[in-house]
Amino acid sequence: MEQAEILDNVINSKNTHFTVKGYGARGASAEEKILREMDIERPNPKDDEVLIKVLYCGVCHSDIHQVNDDWNNTRYPSVPGHEIIGKIAAVGSSVSKFESGQLVGVGCMIDSCQSCNPCENGDEQFCAGEHGPTMTYNGYFRDPESDYNTYGGFSSHIVSNEAFVLTIPKELDIASAAPILCAGVTTYAPMKHWGIKEGDATAVVGIGGLGHMAVQIAKAMGASVTAISTHKSKKEDAKALGADEVLISTDEDAMAEKALSFDYILVTIPTAFDVNPYVNLLTYRGSLITVGLLGEYKKPTNNMNVAMFNRTLGGSVIGSVAETQEVLDFCAKHQIAPEVEMISLDRVNEAFERIQNEDVRFRYVIDMNK
Amino acid sequence: MEQAEILDNVINSKNTHFTVKGYGARGASAEEKILREMDIERPNPKDDEVLIKVLYCGVCHSDIHQVNDDWNNTRYPSVPGHEIIGKIAAVGSSVSKFESGQLVGVGCMIDSCQSCNPCENGDEQFCAGEHGPTMTYNGYFRDPESDYNTYGGFSSHIVSNEAFVLTIPKELDIASAAPILCAGVTTYAPMKHWGIKEGDATAVVGIGGLGHMAVQIAKAMGASVTAISTHKSKKEDAKALGADEVLISTDEDAMAEKALSFDYILVTIPTAFDVNPYVNLLTYRGSLITVGLLGEYKKPTNNMNVAMFNRTLGGSVIGSVAETQEVLDFCAKHQIAPEVEMISLDRVNEAFERIQNEDVRFRYVIDMNK
Repeated sequence: MEQAEILDNVINSKNTHFTVKGYGARGASAEEKILREMDIERPNPKDDEVLIKVLYCGVCHSDIHQVNDDWNNTRYPSVPGHEIIGKIAAVGSSVSKFESGQLVGVGCMIDSCQSCNPCENGDEQFCAGEHGPTMTYNGYFRDPESDYNTYGGFSSHIVSNEAFVLTIPKELDIASAAPILCAGVTTYAPMKHWGIKEGDATAVVGIGGLGHMAVQIAKAMGASVTAISTHKSKKEDAKALGADEVLISTDEDAMAEKALSFDYILVTIPTAFDVNPYVNLLTYRGSLITVGLLGEYKKPTNNMNVAMFNRTLGGSVIGSVAETQEVLDFCAKHQIAPEVEMISLDRVNEAFERIQNEDVRFRYVIDMNK
Repeated sequence: MEQAEILDNVINSKNTHFTVKGYGARGASAEEKILREMDIERPNPKDDEVLIKVLYCGVCHSDIHQVNDDWNNTRYPSVPGHEIIGKIAAVGSSVSKFESGQLVGVGCMIDSCQSCNPCENGDEQFCAGEHGPTMTYNGYFRDPESDYNTYGGFSSHIVSNEAFVLTIPKELDIASAAPILCAGVTTYAPMKHWGIKEGDATAVVGIGGLGHMAVQIAKAMGASVTAISTHKSKKEDAKALGADEVLISTDEDAMAEKALSFDYILVTIPTAFDVNPYVNLLTYRGSLITVGLLGEYKKPTNNMNVAMFNRTLGGSVIGSVAETQEVLDFCAKHQIAPEVEMISLDRVNEAFERIQNEDVRFRYVIDMNK
């Protein structure tokens, strides 16, 4: 469908929904989970919502987990994509923050109840309303009667509540900015909560999509940054991103030498791993936050090593809307940009494959104009 | 040996060591680990050390772990006991804080390097000197050449650096105060670091030696306290200690109802357990600290449930000397007393047996005069 038609459809039609092209999976089987072009129905924007034409969309490891039903909660069809840069195509009647033509971003959420305790505290990611916040894909619309699925940014257009739409600072390169909306905020939020100060010894484990943002952000916060990777090949890349040191996690001697060294460790490994070797790297009262893995660790944690030095291990997901805006502004101010490889939408299955084989430098971004 | 003889031995002799009666295990076998009376040699007090006649000594689960070599680090003979109330019997020439006859306490440490970064920050429990702090038993003396073992309070006398000796507030009942020196500080320190405020929803898991102190201390800090136990029989006891509510952890419905309820959870279970059901009880950004278990959890932690609500899991051991003095003063101020059952030293094997069978109300204390 052409953009003019969609706009016409949304603004002038009596329909409650409109149809756009998306790229999604039909089911969990090997055949069905290959992403294919499909028609998807989106509800017309409400008074406080905006219609956004998608220009760029990052490819996140979560997209793959969701399509694969790794979390046992996928509702098909599944149209992923939650690192979205686009342009406002139409605005609802009460929208005040945005106008047509404006460049904007959408991250992992498009709505929340906006009235519960976490929402009122600016923690929409913990929304206590039914089904939690409305996630950008595989989410539930707020209508409690509806089990209508949300579809992400692997699509020509998306609708979001205006309160969940981000402003893109003009200093950012819009072609590469998309990953800031998930990879950026996911790593920025815990580091902000730590309150990283000048010289704090910080390690980032896993130098992929999340990790390569974390290294740059931690460095801009003033930390002394050690990149930790299983891959010797990441050494030069990590240094180029600003890492002061690189530690290869399979080198047991090097790991032993770094025992009790780090105030903070951010682990971005997206699959099951053994957290115990990283615990030993923390100094006393040090904190380790796992932001990649959403599942069980490979082995039980040994609390002897945690307790002996009053260490803490935590987890964190994404961040609030305010934090997402903050990290966009932070990246603009500190000239931090995701390292991206641009692809066309029809290469997304190949991108998924390569991400799973760890055969990607940092982040793929889909250029919707390609 | 009579006290007069010991004093004479320590003060006037040319020997470097003196001999006292202790109660200890000779090895890890079933036969050897039965505690028996034995002669133990202690180095004479140095200039900055004091000789203490032991009056009371608490029986801690750690004593059993150490005797059983559960941590694979026991050096036999093993004479446990690190909740010691006693009377100063002699002081070294440079001792300024104490004088003979004074009532004092000794907790889990008797010395540390006192010059490393943690020691200078008042965190002697994390001493970065060789072998860490000198633990009250199974510890290493500071002399780097020495692998001489320390022996705990199941003994007539003990020697400690004066900086590690605690003052016993006169409001405390000395017969029952001993468990404050380990069970008290172990639970007080993490709750102090949390900065528990009036009304904070706090849960204490495991209502034994540590837990029964934690309930009382949390309550005195102003928290709303829920005691969590597998044993229905602990319900009345927990209420009597001041718990506002009691939750039985085997009641799945009751546990599900309390999901996302607690700001803080202190887990005092001393053996391997599954932490995952307790994680779900934490509210967003809530913290769980495990102070009992010094080993592996029973199952891997599921980081999905940790990360979804930015929860943190930590561990903590004992506390600093200053914190130990603080908790003694705190208990005196708030009229908190451990619930103890007094036993004679020759009943300690039976006490170990009953603690392992969970057949103890709260804490055994050995009355050395019995």
